[in-house]
Order: sequence, then structure tokens, then C-alpha cells
Amino acid sequence: MNDSRGEQRSARGSRAGELHRAFQTVRAQSEELARGLQPEDQTVQSMPDCSPTKWHLAHVSWFFETFLLVPHMRKYEVVHPQFPFLFNSYYEAAGPRHNRFERGLITRPTVAEVADYRDHVTRAMDDLIQGADERLWAEIEPIVEIGIHHEQQHQELILMDILNLFAANPLRPAYRPWKAQVARAAEPLKWFDYPGGVFEIGHTGESFSYDNESPRHEVLLRPFRLASRAVTNAEWIAFIEDGGYARPDLWLADGWARVKNGEYSAPYYWEKTSHGWEAMTLSGQHRVDPDAPVVHVSFYEADAYARWVGKRLPTEAEWEIAARNLPQTGNFVGSGALRPLAAPASQDHPAQMYGDVWEWTSSPYIAYPGYKPAPGAIGEYNGKFMSNQMVLRGGCCATPDGHIRPTYRNFFYPHQRWPFAGLRLAEDA
Amino acid sequence: MNDSRGEQRSARGSRAGELHRAFQTVRAQSEELARGLQPEDQTVQSMPDCSPTKWHLAHVSWFFETFLLVPHMRKYEVVHPQFPFLFNSYYEAAGPRHNRFERGLITRPTVAEVADYRDHVTRAMDDLIQGADERLWAEIEPIVEIGIHHEQQHQELILMDILNLFAANPLRPAYRPWKAQVARAAEPLKWFDYPGGVFEIGHTGESFSYDNESPRHEVLLRPFRLASRAVTNAEWIAFIEDGGYARPDLWLADGWARVKNGEYSAPYYWEKTSHGWEAMTLSGQHRVDPDAPVVHVSFYEADAYARWVGKRLPTEAEWEIAARNLPQTGNFVGSGALRPLAAPASQDHPAQMYGDVWEWTSSPYIAYPGYKPAPGAIGEYNGKFMSNQMVLRGGCCATPDGHIRPTYRNFFYPHQRWPFAGLRLAEDA
Amino acid sequence: MNDSRGEQRSARGSRAGELHRAFQTVRAQSEELARGLQPEDQTVQSMPDCSPTKWHLAHVSWFFETFLLVPHMRKYEVVHPQFPFLFNSYYEAAGPRHNRFERGLITRPTVAEVADYRDHVTRAMDDLIQGADERLWAEIEPIVEIGIHHEQQHQELILMDILNLFAANPLRPAYRPWKAQVARAAEPLKWFDYPGGVFEIGHTGESFSYDNESPRHEVLLRPFRLASRAVTNAEWIAFIEDGGYARPDLWLADGWARVKNGEYSAPYYWEKTSHGWEAMTLSGQHRVDPDAPVVHVSFYEADAYARWVGKRLPTEAEWEIAARNLPQTGNFVGSGALRPLAAPASQDHPAQMYGDVWEWTSSPYIAYPGYKPAPGAIGEYNGKFMSNQMVLRGGCCATPDGHIRPTYRNFFYPHQRWPFAGLRLAEDA
Amino acid sequence: MNDSRGEQRSARGSRAGELHRAFQTVRAQSEELARGLQPEDQTVQSMPDCSPTKWHLAHVSWFFETFLLVPHMRKYEVVHPQFPFLFNSYYEAAGPRHNRFERGLITRPTVAEVADYRDHVTRAMDDLIQGADERLWAEIEPIVEIGIHHEQQHQELILMDILNLFAANPLRPAYRPWKAQVARAAEPLKWFDYPGGVFEIGHTGESFSYDNESPRHEVLLRPFRLASRAVTNAEWIAFIEDGGYARPDLWLADGWARVKNGEYSAPYYWEKTSHGWEAMTLSGQHRVDPDAPVVHVSFYEADAYARWVGKRLPTEAEWEIAARNLPQTGNFVGSGALRPLAAPASQDHPAQMYGDVWEWTSSPYIAYPGYKPAPGAIGEYNGKFMSNQMVLRGGCCATPDGHIRPTYRNFFYPHQRWPFAGLRLAEDA
Ligand SMILES: [Fe+3]
Ligand SMILES: [Fe+3]
Ligand SMILES: [Fe+3]
Ligand SMILES: [Fe+3]
Repeated sequence: MNDSRGEQRSARGSRAGELHRAFQTVRAQSEELARGLQPEDQTVQSMPDCSPTKWHLAHVSWFFETFLLVPHMRKYEVVHPQFPFLFNSYYEAAGPRHNRFERGLITRPTVAEVADYRDHVTRAMDDLIQGADERLWAEIEPIVEIGIHHEQQHQELILMDILNLFAANPLRPAYRPWKAQVARAAEPLKWFDYPGGVFEIGHTGESFSYDNESPRHEVLLRPFRLASRAVTNAEWIAFIEDGGYARPDLWLADGWARVKNGEYSAPYYWEKTSHGWEAMTLSGQHRVDPDAPVVHVSFYEADAYARWVGKRLPTEAEWEIAARNLPQTGNFVGSGALRPLAAPASQDHPAQMYGDVWEWTSSPYIAYPGYKPAPGAIGEYNGKFMSNQMVLRGGCCATPDGHIRPTYRNFFYPHQRWPFAGLRLAEDA
Repeated sequence: MNDSRGEQRSARGSRAGELHRAFQTVRAQSEELARGLQPEDQTVQSMPDCSPTKWHLAHVSWFFETFLLVPHMRKYEVVHPQFPFLFNSYYEAAGPRHNRFERGLITRPTVAEVADYRDHVTRAMDDLIQGADERLWAEIEPIVEIGIHHEQQHQELILMDILNLFAANPLRPAYRPWKAQVARAAEPLKWFDYPGGVFEIGHTGESFSYDNESPRHEVLLRPFRLASRAVTNAEWIAFIEDGGYARPDLWLADGWARVKNGEYSAPYYWEKTSHGWEAMTLSGQHRVDPDAPVVHVSFYEADAYARWVGKRLPTEAEWEIAARNLPQTGNFVGSGALRPLAAPASQDHPAQMYGDVWEWTSSPYIAYPGYKPAPGAIGEYNGKFMSNQMVLRGGCCATPDGHIRPTYRNFFYPHQRWPFAGLRLAEDA
Repeated sequence: MNDSRGEQRSARGSRAGELHRAFQTVRAQSEELARGLQPEDQTVQSMPDCSPTKWHLAHVSWFFETFLLVPHMRKYEVVHPQFPFLFNSYYEAAGPRHNRFERGLITRPTVAEVADYRDHVTRAMDDLIQGADERLWAEIEPIVEIGIHHEQQHQELILMDILNLFAANPLRPAYRPWKAQVARAAEPLKWFDYPGGVFEIGHTGESFSYDNESPRHEVLLRPFRLASRAVTNAEWIAFIEDGGYARPDLWLADGWARVKNGEYSAPYYWEKTSHGWEAMTLSGQHRVDPDAPVVHVSFYEADAYARWVGKRLPTEAEWEIAARNLPQTGNFVGSGALRPLAAPASQDHPAQMYGDVWEWTSSPYIAYPGYKPAPGAIGEYNGKFMSNQMVLRGGCCATPDGHIRPTYRNFFYPHQRWPFAGLRLAEDA
Repeated sequence: MNDSRGEQRSARGSRAGELHRAFQTVRAQSEELARGLQPEDQTVQSMPDCSPTKWHLAHVSWFFETFLLVPHMRKYEVVHPQFPFLFNSYYEAAGPRHNRFERGLITRPTVAEVADYRDHVTRAMDDLIQGADERLWAEIEPIVEIGIHHEQQHQELILMDILNLFAANPLRPAYRPWKAQVARAAEPLKWFDYPGGVFEIGHTGESFSYDNESPRHEVLLRPFRLASRAVTNAEWIAFIEDGGYARPDLWLADGWARVKNGEYSAPYYWEKTSHGWEAMTLSGQHRVDPDAPVVHVSFYEADAYARWVGKRLPTEAEWEIAARNLPQTGNFVGSGALRPLAAPASQDHPAQMYGDVWEWTSSPYIAYPGYKPAPGAIGEYNGKFMSNQMVLRGGCCATPDGHIRPTYRNFFYPHQRWPFAGLRLAEDA
């Protein structure tokens, strides 16, 4: 290794050290997430939307390898000539790739071999970061940073995908033991008022963000109100019992078609047993907590529910305006609950804006005015998905702490239910 | 019949007479459209998105029967107890209905029997309108009006669907003989500038509109520019020849997936022959006219094209602001061309905003702020389709004259190509 | 036309005249079959296994055109250059052809134009037959004959396919009015004994047969018994009521998979109404006649039924040995019933061996030992279908009179239910 | 445990001891087969026809548990209440079961837990066998024996399924290192003559057989000839190069449809590289050995090949008559090659009748005359599959030694290619 490293680091200042520590942390966190899983669990793909744990672990390493090590580290050679083919997700500009619906067929490299791959990449990245002079650092810093955030996103996907896999097993395995929480009763719904006017939304540019949060731009809002907390399971059961899944007038046509196909009749992972509603969680199957936010509902269901109570979903701009000055804390993955929890007691602002459940908005996921994706493969990160999906805001109980921000735009297809997605009501003021 | 009819009519004033004449005109126009078609042509459904001509002819009659004759005409009985089942399209509130994918299996009632059904409904409607007193008229007038506009929409669908059917036949039948047009060369593209600011869009309420055009509301626009005409076939061929269908960087991911599936490699109905590009039209298969607007492209293709030239599609608000004061004339069905034609010579405003081709916008089809669908079955007309579709503006060569207006919002799924849809470029000013 | 025709005919003797009359008869019969159908009915394809009536009418003409007129008539030109593409069914050696699943999209040529095509071919065939000298006649005679039998097969298909089409229409149209029959009670089942030994089956070569009936060859049979009549609807209802469709032990696995998919729960076209079981027929929907043979059951159902009563289906050799000396008369299409009828009163041999319902055998449809298909396209007639299908014997109420013989081998996939197929029980003696 | 065991064993004589040893051997062999596989490899299901290794290992244990331990061992309790649901394959009479297409979703029990399950069952079986008195032994002996043969069948399936899984991985992993063999050139094809006449086929009842090999019965054969060895890869390449996959006249229609769909263009697992044809094997991807038998072809391909050379496939009766007196030795799994090898030098009888490749026959898999499946769940073993499949004879390089016999009837659907199936030619004498 390089003797002059220490100087170079000081030359680049504390920013590099900070990012290096963040890199090491995120790498360790991913491995920690996988620790409780058997090699069998890490290999299987339970549906096309999901990927095996070990694929996630390898893919995020491929990201660092492809966008940093290969172009910027002298004499670096890829660990295996086929790994780029196997672990490229969707980057057309980065070359051909394995069919994403067949990721579950790849039993080799094994979990242990993927761990070796990770180690190799982590150590090479350590060298790259520590050995970078100022010019190189300037070039690689934004990619290191996006690589860290990218790996965090896949940490959430690992949890989403493992829940999906375990829910398909009649044995209903638990990823983590159930962590008891102090019982908390959901408060009656209150409403917070927001004035209309022209506001700015989108990223301000001071810290990290994805390209889809820019450009910051003006939006015109009408006065609106936002619910004090997310919709709860008890409220959702009332919707079911009132025939919510049997009344076409409540539904968008595309959603109703799925109801008629038998796709939706309760939230995903719910099962009606002789003891009442139970739901599969990352800690196995349990009674549905009436006070906790409903989770694993599609946009169509969220929209139907809102219509049923005579309200609507918020737009993403409304959500952002309401959330921008709130503390960015909540029930994220670090809380260890791994499930949404009842909202805390009454406050002077909406609770649970961050954490617990991603909140479906009524906003289709499209480009902000003037949006330009980055050139090259990294430009494929967000921009090419700007059709047919809906924006969700606020993060959830499976989101890594610190990953989220007020301007963060998550997006899923309106029919998808495997994200930890719920809803918060809004209405015109 | 009723002797006092004349007086009643006068009592209700000229508005009723005008609407009655519009009703009779639209009924006659539908039948005129079908005149050149054989019973065989009118029976077949060439793909799930399409319906047989005779189904359209019956369905629009069912609309008048169900929403006017049954509730408002004393002792009216439906012509056949099964017709509501067969000819209800998608109105959940109007009762059960036949599977829309199987409309082509219904050979009885025959074309002649459907003509009888139409006659019966038309005559009953004549009686209802003429016999209505003021109170009844006030109640039925909006339904009569929407029924007329509804039938116009199905007139356009008849033409879209017949083109689709005839294109599936290797004999390439012609619906109407080719109507020669004075050759017109497409002018070089020019750009028109529009200032930013807060504008009102949506229907003003003076005349007929669909509910999805309301409420009129403010939007915030940034300065923008609009192309002087639609994109032409010659321009599209340049896109093809530059590898437009082979460059993933130009495409939204959902569109690219369709390219890779072999779904898109040129506009729908195009065929590369030894003589060059030909396209199937309502007048059979012909050489592609380089100066005419490209038509039968999906939103994905339109979006990829715009990215290829470094421009973008307009939003629906931009389109509406630019179009609101232009004459609402153009190459509609009345011109008899039944195909888009090259834009007329230079003007002081964008040409072809109305007619020729529906213009894909970048706006997802969602509710305007404060939108409320009408109560009852009629409320299903537009509202329940507000997901996953994109807005198109301006009407096309198959749209009935007089059907369109600046605030008119048409909508299709982004992958659909059987509408007469093309595009106009926009850019930030 | 040709003055010397009469002499040529006499030169070839009465055989040619006889065949010519048979040709003219079969052409007229096909047209008679279509007479009650509207152009709409003749155009639609209700499922992939079916074809439109007008396709059948054109295809049998294409057969004569392709295999006789084109190769043997001087200067004959095909009526339309695309008709061979449209009306070739499955003859690879005869050139490319239209996708058989899309026959229902071809509205042109119309029914009237197909009639013109038929007339043209019939007249040309008249000329060819009448003008043929001995040498030519020797060459064309076998093709004329197979063409006639081919057209008869399509006559039965026309009826099968129209029933399928009309059954898909909630209006349940009738192809022909219901023809009342003298009520006849089904007799109690009796059994006829047959000895074992070595027997010859297959065609003897004296008269017309298809190639799949040859070579005549020896088979070894064990003593067996055959039921005196086909299984009746009353017997089938007992099977249903005993849970026949709910007991996996009665079913072949491939059949049971279809039961579990919801495909089979009663014979095809049956509907349980408040009045009991009704069935769609060529004369509309009617109460199921308890004494008539059950029809429109798959091989899987027939096999399950036989297991339920502790019997089995006969092999095709057993059937042929039992049938070979019986009069080849029965309820064929000429009876006008167009549905299977209760067996006639007791006889000294099994009743209903011919006509009423095709009888599923336990024999897979494979080549007889030493079988060689004819060279060229005609060789594709039967041979290439010798996998995955089962043999049926005896003809049905939709089979043209005179079409069938003891050695005749019909074949369908074991899951298919749209043929007029039922079953007769057998057992080991 | 039981002190009197030794006596009881002697009472039952050596037969019990022999079978007990066979039981222990088969259990150990299964575990030995899995030893080289990682937990990841043992968990995944690469296509619906396949199952995960660990499912096979558990299922064969469930078989012993369900049909022996539960009914015959006092106080035996199933290891896990859900295991019967997870590991019942297709026995309707044994209760509900997990969807076979989703066996790959079951990551728990893990490979290690399945090993525990196996141990538990093996030990309980040891106790049951050793502790059985004469009466009990008489009852359980046939089930113990079928259980052993059942486990052998799944050993072959494990190898078939692992090959399929590894072939789906671009890394082309090897299950076992390539075992070099003395090069052996395929001899020119010779023919052996067999007389016609009435022969007996089917099991004689002296030793173990499956029910589908009975009853022994007479068949009538015509004189025939059989090829001296299986068709080789070199011969198959000649077929390919002669356009065998492009000539519809060679193919059954159902096979040709798959060619047109792109399903068949060379044997399964073959890949044309710049070095010529390579094939994936259990030892990774290697050059195709021209002298070795072709393997992994469907019945349709085998049938087309035979037609191409002007021969045919043998019937299963012909095969059995020719094979019945030959030594039942060959290249089975015990040889360690795990791939078919070139036939040994010339002999006075056909070579390779046993081992190397399963030989497709022209015989549909149907019941022998008088066949009756066993009562109860065991009766589902073979009988319910007697439709739509073809008989294969002789075993292959993945078949356990000693598993096969002259009367053994294997069966697969004609389109399936993942068995180690090839062909031997026959012709009429
Ligand atoms: Fe990623
Ligand atoms: Fe409509
Ligand atoms: Fe035919
Ligand atoms: Fe098994």
C-alpha cells in the first residue's frame, strides 16, 4: 500500500474520511442484514419484482466495481469476467446482462463466493479512496456517494424481498424475532391546514440527492389539509367490512380489474384465520395490530380507501411542503422493529411523515420541469423509469436511517404491494 | 303522437330543437360511416382494444336507452332483455355486462337487427325529446348532450377499429377510396414562444364539456416554445435510419422493453417493401407521404423521438394555453381525407393544432384539482380511467367535426398505437 | 366448352360420372349447410380450434384448386393470388399460409365473394372432370375422391364450429329449428360378447379410405364385451351427482389438472338452471334428454366415467371388429335431428355403433404397422397428426351420410370437447 | 429398542436383511449424490418439470414416513406437521400438497434440516424393519421395496434436475469433474433381425416390478430389425447440417410447431460456438463427442431423425423382446461417467440396450390389457399418467445400477428434453 496516503487524505480534508467511513458502514450494514439468512434464503427469487439477497449483495459491489474501480483504478481487473453480466441490473450503457427474471437460477457464485467478491471490492475501494489525489477525488466523490446511497436502497430491497420469500413458505419463517413494543393506541385522526400559494420544491443542492429531485422549481398549491397520521389497520378493516373490495364505484378501473381477477381482497400478506386477521411480517405471522399503519397496499387500494372516506391522497408537492421542516426521524430500520408502529402521541404537526410506511401520493412519477439525467450509465439510475409509476414519500420501517430526505422521491407501479407502502389522507382546505 | 308537441318545443325554446337536430345528425352520421362496410366487417373484433362496428352502433343506442328512455319515458321497454348485457361497455352501476374481449363472438343480433334497434331507439328519442315538458327537458338535456358527444367518440373508434381490422387482412381492403390531395411540402420547423406565468386551464362552463375538463384552475407555466407543426414522416424515417429503435438511451424503460420484445420497430401499420416504406390507411396500403404527420406511434416512441432531437413533448397545459385562441378548424373527418395531411403554409401561429393527429403530451391523465365525477353511472364516463394513461390533445383526421375544443382531454395508455396519434415538439424557452 | 365431352365420359365409363355427381352433390350440400347462416355467423372464429364457415367453404375449394386445377388444368389461374395463402390450412408443402388462429380476422373476401370463388372452382372442376381423357382421369380420380371426402369432413366441422360460436352468445341462437322426435326411452344396458384371437383390421382396399386406415394388418385381441348402446345423459347425471368431477381417483392426471382448473364440471355446453340441466344444441338451448347419449365430453371425462362404473373404453380394434359387419346406418346429418338420439329398441347387436356420437376409444392415434403417408402435400392429410391424439370411431349426428366406414379413424386431442363425442363402455370378457 | 430383534429377523429370514441393506444403501447413495452440491444448488427449481435436490431428498423420506411409519409404527409422529404438505408430490389420496411449480420457493427447511429429517426417517425405518414380526413384515415388505425403487428414481431426477439448473447458469458449473474415458470410435451401424410372431411381454412376477409392467400378456409382432447401437452425435450433426430442423415433411405437426416457435434447433444443452458444437454436461460444457450417443432430444426430434434416415423408432414390445435375454449391464450411474459413451466394439447382439441413454419408442404409454392399479395412494404411482406420454426403455448414464430390467417402462411427454433420452433405429424386416 501507499505510504503517502495519510498526506493525501489530509489534502482532501475531512470530507473524504467521512465518506470513506460511510462507505465502510454501509458495506458492513449490508452484510449484517444477511447474517441471519441461510444460503438457501439468499439464493431464491420469489417473484420477478424481487431479487435474491446474494444478488443484491453482489450487484451493489458490481456498481462500485463498474463505475469506480474499472475506470479509475490502475490495473484493476474484474473479479470474474462473467460477474458484470450477472450483476448488472438494468444499465444498458454498461453492457449486456442476465435476464432479471432468472436471477434465482444462479446458484453459483455461492453466498460464500459473493462474500469474497464483496471483500475484494471493499478492499479495492478502500485503496482507491485512500490513494486518490485531489483531482481523482473530485472525480470519484459523487460516484462514491451515489454508490453508498445505492447500496442503502438495496438494503431496503433485501428486506422487502425476504419478506416476500418467507411469506411464500407455509412454514412462515421469521427473519428476526418479534421485537415487542410498548403498546400505543392510535389517536383519532386530526387535520393540519396548509395555505395555498407558489412554493419551491425539489433539492436545494447543498447535500446529496438523486437527480430526480432536481431541478428545484416552483409549484402552485391550493390550500390543503393533511391527516395527523397514516391510515391504521383498524381503519382498513372497517373498509373491508364495509365492502370496500366489492364496490366498483370506489376504484380506478385498472385497480378494479385486479380486484375482479382475485388479486386484491385485503392487504398483501394478510390472512383471515379463525382468530381474525393475521399478517406475515419479517418476524413471522402475527395478529394484525389495529393501531399500526396499514402496510403492503397498492396505490389502487390506497386510492379506493381515500375515496371511501371522502378524502384523497396528497400530491407529492403537498407532502414535501408539509414535511420539509419536520425532523427527519422516525421508525426506520435502525429502530429494529422492522414493522410499522402506531403513531406517537399528539403533536403540533403530522406524525409519521418519516418512517413506518412509504406514503402513496396522487402524483405520477414524471420529470421535474427542466430535468436532465446525468450523461452515461449513471443517467439511467432514475430517469428512464419516469412512466407508469407513482411517487411515494417518507421512507419506511425498512429504510436505512439517514437515507431519506424531504425531497426524496420513491416510485413504484400502482399495482405493486411488496413495498412497505401505506397512505396518509389529504383533502382540499 | 302528441298534438301539443309544437308548443312544448317552443316552450323550451330553440335550444331543444337545436339539440334534437344534433341528435338526428349524429345518428345519421354513424349510419353513414357504416354504409361502406359489409356485415362481415362490422362483426369482427381484431384485438381486445377494438370493438366491432355493430357493437359500437348498438352501444351508443344502449346509452340513450339506458340513461334516457328507461328512466324518463313512460312504459318504455328495452328492445331485448339481453341487449343491456351485450351493449353496456364498462358502466358497473348499469349492471352486469358481456366480457369486452369477446364482443367479436356475438354474431346475433345481426347488422340488420342492430339497424332495427337503432331505428327504434332513434324514434323513441325523437318522441322523448319532442314530448318533454320544461321540467323533463331540464333533466334530460345534459344527458342528451353527452349522448351525442358519446356517439361522436364512438364514430372515431369505428374508424380506428376498422383500420385495425383491415390492416390484419393480407388483402389490405380499403374502407374508402383514396382521396387525392393537392401535394403540399412540409415547411421547415419553426418555433413559437410562450411566456411563463400563472394561467387558467380547464373548461369555462359556457358550453358542453366532459367532467374531466373541470374544474377550471390555475397552473404555473415556465416560458416554453412550441413547434410550428407536427413531426412528419420524413423526420420519423430519419429517426429510424439513425437507429432510433436501437438506442436504449433514447427510451423510457417500459418502452424499451417493448422494443426488445419486437413490438416497435416503425410506426404501427408501416411495412418496409421493396418500394420503401408503405403504410396501411383507411384507403388501403400506400407509400408513406414524407410531408404528412407521422401517425400511429405510441407515447414511448413519441417521447424517444423528442429525446433524439433534443426536445421534449409539451405538457397538456402548455398545449392548451397555446391552442385556446386558435380557430378550432382542421383536418377532421369531414375533410374526407381520413388520413393526416401535410401542414398548410406558414402562419403566425402553430399549424395543425386541431385535426390531423392527436398529439401526445407529457402529462399523465389525472384529475384536475378539485375534480368530482358526476354521481351514478355517468360518473364512470371519465373519472375511473385516471391512472396509467397519458393525455392527448387536438383531435385527428378521424374525429367528427365540432367534437373537439381547446380543453378537450383525450387519453390512451402510453403503449397504444391504434389511435391516430402523433406528436408536436416543445422545449423550454 | 368441349363437344367431345360425352364421348370422353363414356370412354372413362360410369365411374367418372358417378364421382362427378358425388362432387356436385357435396358442393351443393356445403352450400345448403351455410344457407341458414348470416354473413356475420359465417365470419367469426369462436376459438382457435374452430374456423369460420366461410373459411371452411373457401378452404375446400382451395383444396380442389390446388391439388387438381392448378396442376392439371391448362392455363388455369388461381382466382386470387392471396387465396392460397388465406385458405391453405396446414399443408407445409403447399406453401406459406395465414395463421390459423387469426382466420376470424379475415372479413374479406366476404361470404358473397367466397360463394363466387366456390362457383368458379366448381365450374372449373366440372370442366376438368368432363374433359379428362383416360390418362388424366386415372391421375386425378383419387384426388377428386379425396377432395369430396375432405369437403364432407369440413361439413361436419362447420356444424361443430357453429355450435361453438352460438353457444358463446348469451342469446343462444338456433342454427335450425328443433326437430321433434318420437320419444324413445333408453333401454337398460346389455352386453355383447366377442371372442379373442388374431383378427385383421384396417382398410381392405376395395373402396375409398384415408391412408391412416392402412395397411390392413393383424391384431391380437383378448375376449371382450361391448355395451349395447352409448352412455346416456341420465347415466352421466348420476356420475355428476355421485361426485364424479370431485374424485381424483377416477381421473387421469392430465384430466384432473383440467378439472382443478375449472375446465370440466359437466359436459361442454351444459348449464345448470333452475329447471335442471340444459344443453346448448344446434337448435338452441334445451332440457337435457335423459335417454339420449351424452355428447361433448372429453376423452378424460369418458375415461373417468368408465372407471367410475368399473368398466373401460374399447380399443379401436375391438370397436372395428364389432362394427365391421353391422349396417352402416344411423343418426347422421341426413336425419335432420342434428343431435344424438336415444338408441333404438333392442337388437341382436350393439346399437348406435354408427351415428349419434363419435365414440372415444382407449387407443392413441398412431400409425398402423407399415404405414406410409402419400408423397407430397396430400401426405400431410393424416400422418403428421399421429401424436398426442386419441382415436374415435363411428361418426355422429353431424357426419354426412355415407362418409363413414368400419375402418374410419377419427382423432382428437383428449381434452377436446367441441366434437360430437360420447362413449360406449367395454370390459374384458 | 427391542431385545428380540435378532430372533425376529431370523424368523423372517434373509429376505428382510437383504432389503434392509438395500434400504440403507439407497439412503446413503442419495446423500452421496448431494454431497458435491452447495445448499444454494439444492434449493432452486430451474423449471416446472424439475425439483430442488433437497425437495427430492425430503420427498423420498416423506414416502417412507407416509406409507410405512405413520400407518405401521406405533406412536410415530411426523417430524413436522407441514412436511407432508410440502413433500407430497402428487398423491391425491395422501392429502393436500404444495404447488409443484413453487417448490423452489421453500428455503426452509434448509438443506441441513432436511438432512436431519432424513436421519430421523432412516432411523425410524431401521427400527420398523428390524422390529417387524412376520405378519407386519409381510404387510410392509412390498412398500419398503417400492420405497427403495422410488428413491432410486429420484436419484436419477436429482441428476437430471441439477444438469438443468447448472445449464441455466452462464458460469456453466460442473457437478463432478470430467472423467476421461478411453476413446472409442462408434462402429458403423449394423442391423439385427428378429422374427415375427406372438410373444409375451410384461413382468413375470418373480422379482420386483412396478404395476405398469403387468399383466404379462401376448403381443403380435411382425418381423423387424434393430440397430446395433444408439444414434450418435456425429449422425445427429449430419441431420442438422442436412436441414433436419428446417424440413417440415420430417416432423409430426406437434413437433414442428415447437420448431417454429424456436424451441428446437439442436439437442437441448447444445451450443454452437466458434469451436463447433459444445454441450453442457454434469461435468461442465465440453465439445460434443461425435461417437457418443446423442442425448437430450425430444420424442419429436427422435421421430424426425428416424424419418430422415428412412427408418423408424422401435415399439416398446420390439425393444423388450430384443432386450429380454441380454445382460442388464451398461453405462449406469455407477460407471461414474455421468454421460453417454460410445458403444463398445462389435457384438452378436445390439449394444447399449441398457444404460447410456433412455431410448424413445414409438409406443404411447398406456395400460397393458387388464392392468389394474393398486388400491389407495400407491395406486397413483404410475397409472394416472397413462395419457399423452411415450414409453422409453433401457435406462441411462444417470440411472442407478440395478434399477432397471427388461420390462421397465419409463415415460415422458414427447416434447421433454431434460431426461437423458436418445434413440435407437428400427425398421420392418
Ligand atoms: Fe441497483
Ligand atoms: Fe361508450
Ligand atoms: Fe381441410
Ligand atoms: Fe416420487
